[in-house]
Amino acid sequence: MDSLFFAVPVLGVLGLLFALFQGQKILKEDSGNERMKEIAKAIAEGAEAFLFAEYRILLFFVCSLFLCIGFGTKSWLSAVAFIFGALLSTLAGYFGMRSATSANVRTAEAARQYGMKKALSIAFSGGSVMGMCVAGFGIFGIGLFYMLTKDVGVLSGFSLGASSIALFARVGGGIYTKAADVGADLVGKVEAGIPEDDPRNPAVIADNVGDNVGDVAGMGADLFESYVGALVSAMTLGFLLEGKSIEGVAFPLLLAGLSLLACVLGSILVLTLGGDNPSKVLKMASYSSAAAVLIFAFALSQYFFRDLHAAFAVTAGLIAGLAIGAVTEYYTSSSYNPVKEIAKQSETGPATNIISGMAIGMRSTAVPIVLISVAIFISYSVLGLYGIALAAVGMLSTTAITVAVDAYGPIADNAGGIAEMSGLPEEVRCITDQLDAVGNTTAAMGKGFAIGSAALTALALFASYAQAVGLNNINVLDSRVCIGLFIGAMLPFLFSAFTMSSVSKAAFSMISEVRRQFREKPGIMEGTEKPDYKTCVSISTKAALREMIVPGVLAVLAPLGIGLLLGAESLGGLLAGALVSGVMMAIFMSNSGGAWDNAKKYVEEGHNGGKGSDTHKAAVVGDTVGDPFKDTSGPSINILIKLMTVIALVFAPLIVAVGGIL
Amino acid sequence: MDSLFFAVPVLGVLGLLFALFQGQKILKEDSGNERMKEIAKAIAEGAEAFLFAEYRILLFFVCSLFLCIGFGTKSWLSAVAFIFGALLSTLAGYFGMRSATSANVRTAEAARQYGMKKALSIAFSGGSVMGMCVAGFGIFGIGLFYMLTKDVGVLSGFSLGASSIALFARVGGGIYTKAADVGADLVGKVEAGIPEDDPRNPAVIADNVGDNVGDVAGMGADLFESYVGALVSAMTLGFLLEGKSIEGVAFPLLLAGLSLLACVLGSILVLTLGGDNPSKVLKMASYSSAAAVLIFAFALSQYFFRDLHAAFAVTAGLIAGLAIGAVTEYYTSSSYNPVKEIAKQSETGPATNIISGMAIGMRSTAVPIVLISVAIFISYSVLGLYGIALAAVGMLSTTAITVAVDAYGPIADNAGGIAEMSGLPEEVRCITDQLDAVGNTTAAMGKGFAIGSAALTALALFASYAQAVGLNNINVLDSRVCIGLFIGAMLPFLFSAFTMSSVSKAAFSMISEVRRQFREKPGIMEGTEKPDYKTCVSISTKAALREMIVPGVLAVLAPLGIGLLLGAESLGGLLAGALVSGVMMAIFMSNSGGAWDNAKKYVEEGHNGGKGSDTHKAAVVGDTVGDPFKDTSGPSINILIKLMTVIALVFAPLIVAVGGIL
Repeated sequence: MDSLFFAVPVLGVLGLLFALFQGQKILKEDSGNERMKEIAKAIAEGAEAFLFAEYRILLFFVCSLFLCIGFGTKSWLSAVAFIFGALLSTLAGYFGMRSATSANVRTAEAARQYGMKKALSIAFSGGSVMGMCVAGFGIFGIGLFYMLTKDVGVLSGFSLGASSIALFARVGGGIYTKAADVGADLVGKVEAGIPEDDPRNPAVIADNVGDNVGDVAGMGADLFESYVGALVSAMTLGFLLEGKSIEGVAFPLLLAGLSLLACVLGSILVLTLGGDNPSKVLKMASYSSAAAVLIFAFALSQYFFRDLHAAFAVTAGLIAGLAIGAVTEYYTSSSYNPVKEIAKQSETGPATNIISGMAIGMRSTAVPIVLISVAIFISYSVLGLYGIALAAVGMLSTTAITVAVDAYGPIADNAGGIAEMSGLPEEVRCITDQLDAVGNTTAAMGKGFAIGSAALTALALFASYAQAVGLNNINVLDSRVCIGLFIGAMLPFLFSAFTMSSVSKAAFSMISEVRRQFREKPGIMEGTEKPDYKTCVSISTKAALREMIVPGVLAVLAPLGIGLLLGAESLGGLLAGALVSGVMMAIFMSNSGGAWDNAKKYVEEGHNGGKGSDTHKAAVVGDTVGDPFKDTSGPSINILIKLMTVIALVFAPLIVAVGGIL
Repeated sequence: MDSLFFAVPVLGVLGLLFALFQGQKILKEDSGNERMKEIAKAIAEGAEAFLFAEYRILLFFVCSLFLCIGFGTKSWLSAVAFIFGALLSTLAGYFGMRSATSANVRTAEAARQYGMKKALSIAFSGGSVMGMCVAGFGIFGIGLFYMLTKDVGVLSGFSLGASSIALFARVGGGIYTKAADVGADLVGKVEAGIPEDDPRNPAVIADNVGDNVGDVAGMGADLFESYVGALVSAMTLGFLLEGKSIEGVAFPLLLAGLSLLACVLGSILVLTLGGDNPSKVLKMASYSSAAAVLIFAFALSQYFFRDLHAAFAVTAGLIAGLAIGAVTEYYTSSSYNPVKEIAKQSETGPATNIISGMAIGMRSTAVPIVLISVAIFISYSVLGLYGIALAAVGMLSTTAITVAVDAYGPIADNAGGIAEMSGLPEEVRCITDQLDAVGNTTAAMGKGFAIGSAALTALALFASYAQAVGLNNINVLDSRVCIGLFIGAMLPFLFSAFTMSSVSKAAFSMISEVRRQFREKPGIMEGTEKPDYKTCVSISTKAALREMIVPGVLAVLAPLGIGLLLGAESLGGLLAGALVSGVMMAIFMSNSGGAWDNAKKYVEEGHNGGKGSDTHKAAVVGDTVGDPFKDTSGPSINILIKLMTVIALVFAPLIVAVGGIL
């Protein structure tokens, strides 16, 4: 058995080597003319500056929490695991972002020199570095830590490390990118009437930096924590399975390792096939990786348990994940009725656009919830709470390729921006736009996975928490549990209010700055004066860092506060309440935002009046409202619900010791 | 003890007599010139036509459910109670609406002839008929039914009757009023540039009818069901209290009866004081009624139980209700920062107006939830689940005056409309506008009560359900409960999606019709041709009736379906999930809507650019989005969560017998 456990970090390293190989390959490509290099450098520097500033704040936060864990739970090993998890999450985010900022300009250049196939290959390679880093560091870290300590209990610390970084990366990155985006759009596109990514717009570099720190680094950290959380909860619950404890730990771990291998193969498939239909290629890679995972799951289940129950649980999760992805696509892609309906409702103005977009987002919660419920029902029927954790592992088994496909989108988007800013011919922009459009659709699938897996992971972590505090029963009829449920259900609303206000405030500063530059430097619009990009970058950076503190602290203090005041059962109620209301809010906000975005694009393609019409203006309003919905508040809630559960899990000893002050 | 129980229906009849007296008094007032009479008649006829059309559909629904209850639970007495509850709710709504449609024109005339004091008195009298009918019929019905049967078990049928009518009245009325309102505003105010309530607008009568069927009849039915639900659950849980069963039943019933008396006194206070500061008078009446209720509560608690525990629970509920009202006012009144912030954000366009309005609505969930939690904590500490039910009764004890103050708003609003349409002098409109503005603020308090009491009532009914199916434990860690939680939390989102889409669709038909009339009858705008009001009334009526079916059926089938498929515990999870997510959605949507409405009015008063500015246009968008939020979807969710719980309670025997098919 020991040699099997040894294989896990090795598989992780294998994934990391693949990432390294891809990263080196990208760097060998041509990065275009001087103008392109200059722009790419500005974007890369802005992104790096933001991440380093963020890390400085996180260092303080991580050190404080390290001491809290150590003194609060008396488990310094957990505290070390926490540091380790935070470090690996940071590394995954950093390398992923680095590769994205080197792939963007090379994708543009490849589109110029060679066309679609080569451009797709570079953009996807860039994304796959992120994907492999997320899964590789996850597997490597957990595998190594378990091999060294043989203690599943301390792994929750590792998971907390991942979650803490994820929260700040998502919230900070989300505020950054949307402040820049909204600011650039409202003044540039609407007021000054210049196109998107026009180099005369002072916020244009900040906007492109935002894509990298929000959509790449933030999303990577998000899935890293889901991945780690699902694995840790499966191992924790597996360890408690009667009579087969080691197998219960080994199964999810090895499955994750082998799944990483499946994803490497899927990535190679994309890179060798390439071709003129990127959408088909990317989907095929995802589906074939998933198929390989299922084969591994059945083989491992038979090998470890002599039955197929574990494989059924994994299958239920994986299929639910794919189905949620498909449903998300239905509600957010302009090929289907919902988005067309929003476009039609935009004809009567922004109010009806907003109402119909929200109605569609709310309606889109129904099917995913039924799918999650079916996955819970099946996986619990075969293996109890452990089954639910395995369903989460199954859903996340293809993380490496999901992240690759997801991170590919912003790279293509950035490539388009660079093409625009450096004045490359129209055809180049045309290719990158096509790549970007495909990225939007595949990203919808990725978002579906992120939400579905967050729900199952949080549930599995929740079950682990109950075990850790020795609860077999969290009774809704108990008034304390009930109070917990109410407060928990309220937190995602409060949290979303904070993050949305933050985007508003930050966007407001950005708008003022861009207006100021246009006013004070009239040469900008005539092309005789250079705009001051740096001030805009610095406004986004400062606003994001300042605004991420309150939501971050709320996420840590709320569960601790209720746990210490009202006891472990009440905290259980809080986690359950936050889970169910948070999942709804996350689906609602992400899908409304995605649908508005694509409704606007649909109108821009010439439907319902086309670009420049009143319908289009109304659709732009929806898109702007949708920006913080889909890229800041919605995805942050995913992390909120997991982070609070992990906090509860790690601080379980303290909460049990205090036992509720009131 | 029997003579005490006899006193209850008598107190109910007393309230009804007061309503009758007020109603007669209104009819004696002068109803103005011919033009006013004609308009008032059109409004009254439209409202009556809608209610009768609604009753026809409800008759079919009520008969079906009567048979389902009879055959499903084998308790035909419950089925009869159901009919009785439905009938009384209908009567309360009908009489309230009748008095509102006779008070509106007389308020306008009084404002013209005598000024503020007399106008306030008539408008409030009109509202108080509704208030007294709600509480009077409630007390009378429950009191009589209990006196005759001495069986608390069958009262849940009565409660279900009230809830069924409430759902359709709220959803149907809400769709009606908002379709007409949005349609009238978008074409009349925005496109044709004519003022609100201009007689040239074909949708203007439909809009005024909507105020009566939605804001008066719908709201009355809503509070009738809360009132009845709280009483029934308190009596059910009180009956199970060890050793003091009869006292446990008698206490809430007598308290409600005496509270009605307190509200009659409060109403007389308003009518005798009147005066130039309507806001102060209305608030004073509410507070003094509440104080009288507390005195009764302490006296009755001492008398029945020889301790003050029950009084403490009542006090906790009542104070929480008043505090939630104050918080609601803070978030939705233009005297405070949140609304001013929305007005400021409107300067950068509709998108930022929408984002900030939603953020404020979401943020406004926090304090009310903490207040509800504190009320739960205190009331449960003193008397367990019975205490929670008593807190709900306490919160609703002042229903008669809350409804009076709430229904007064639309009457004043209608009076203003009639003044405008019949060309009364500017000063008249000025007085009615002042009365209306006060109504908006006091209505905010009423909404706070409605939401807070819905939460506590649903919780108390939930506890009764658990008793009825014999569950002492609903364990969140059980996968079926967990599935129930997820699906339950999703239902308010799906339900809101339906109701919002319905408003969109109905408003769309209304807009087309108004545009058609303006196009085909150019004489309308010049004043030479009369618009066709009836077609608009008929569009709203048909749309409301058609669109209320799906949400109504969903509310009945979802709990039954889960209960029969997955069993009683899973249904418990569903109810808990729907409760917590529904309360958040209701607060969020109501407060966002109220805040947008008042932000628009604040801008119209001349702030941030004033009427006609771009800021104003942006604020109008928010107001239009807020319309279905605050008057259709938000309040309907209140009823949804109670109705589903009552369905579960009534069908408990069936659900236990089937025991979960899966």
